[in-house]
Amino acid sequence: MSIHGSKARRLGFQRERELVRLFWKKGFACMRAPASGAKVKRTVYPDVVALKNGFTLIFEVKTREKRGTIYIEKEKIEKLLEFARRVKSKAYAFIAVKFLDGSGWRFIPVELLEETRGGRFKVTEEAYNKGLTLKELCGIVDGVASLDKFLSTLEA
Amino acid sequence: MSIHGSKARRLGFQRERELVRLFWKKGFACMRAPASGAKVKRTVYPDVVALKNGFTLIFEVKTREKRGTIYIEKEKIEKLLEFARRVKSKAYAFIAVKFLDGSGWRFIPVELLEETRGGRFKVTEEAYNKGLTLKELCGIVDGVASLDKFLSTLEA
Repeated sequence: MSIHGSKARRLGFQRERELVRLFWKKGFACMRAPASGAKVKRTVYPDVVALKNGFTLIFEVKTREKRGTIYIEKEKIEKLLEFARRVKSKAYAFIAVKFLDGSGWRFIPVELLEETRGGRFKVTEEAYNKGLTLKELCGIVDGVASLDKFLSTLEA
Repeated sequence: MSIHGSKARRLGFQRERELVRLFWKKGFACMRAPASGAKVKRTVYPDVVALKNGFTLIFEVKTREKRGTIYIEKEKIEKLLEFARRVKSKAYAFIAVKFLDGSGWRFIPVELLEETRGGRFKVTEEAYNKGLTLKELCGIVDGVASLDKFLSTLEA
């Protein structure tokens, strides 16, 4: 494994821990997935799972230095959806995106992703802008904001 | 860290992975907690979390060569209960016990633990015998067995 890969992975874990702390502060039970080590691919688990009030929020975490379209392997999206399907009740899968330009976390429902011709999925700028802020996400889980409104944005 | 500690930890992870596979086979979404590394104590997360049909099952995993009372630090029990409290809806905390004498997993609700005078908690043989088998646990989550009956055993 390259030093670059190792460093990127370490920074990735730091962001995941940051996200876990944020959700914990907001009253969620939250857990991140095990580190894979160099040999094992981390495809079995979502990166982070947050639980509250019967909701299960399932996250693939992506951080980037600069803004732009983010590409994600199909396999990872399928794992998120399979995890959500198994939970069954009030389970939602998101890409948790953080651009390191000072902007906060943005949570993009996987339903907003577009499939590429190469069989990957992408978070476009449009999808990113439709994504939820932490406050909006917490509002839904705490019953303050409308779940219906959230779901209707997915169909728009 | 001693070689013994490192080996014990590795075996512990193997058992956790075994448990995750078992629940996955039974249709649960399931995740184990990150390995702590030598420096960080693994007290923040439960060892394993399994989700299905709106239920959240939260586990501290204990395996022992031989049968006997199992002692658990108070802090770990408190973490399990705090995690369950945050999930709020249909969340149950268990000690998942496996004795390496050929017997299967047994799931002991934390409500059945006894506090010791030294401030720890223990799984007595009686509590172990009241614990649920994997089949019984799945029956409850799948709505086949009665949750009321399960809860009443806690009060017995």
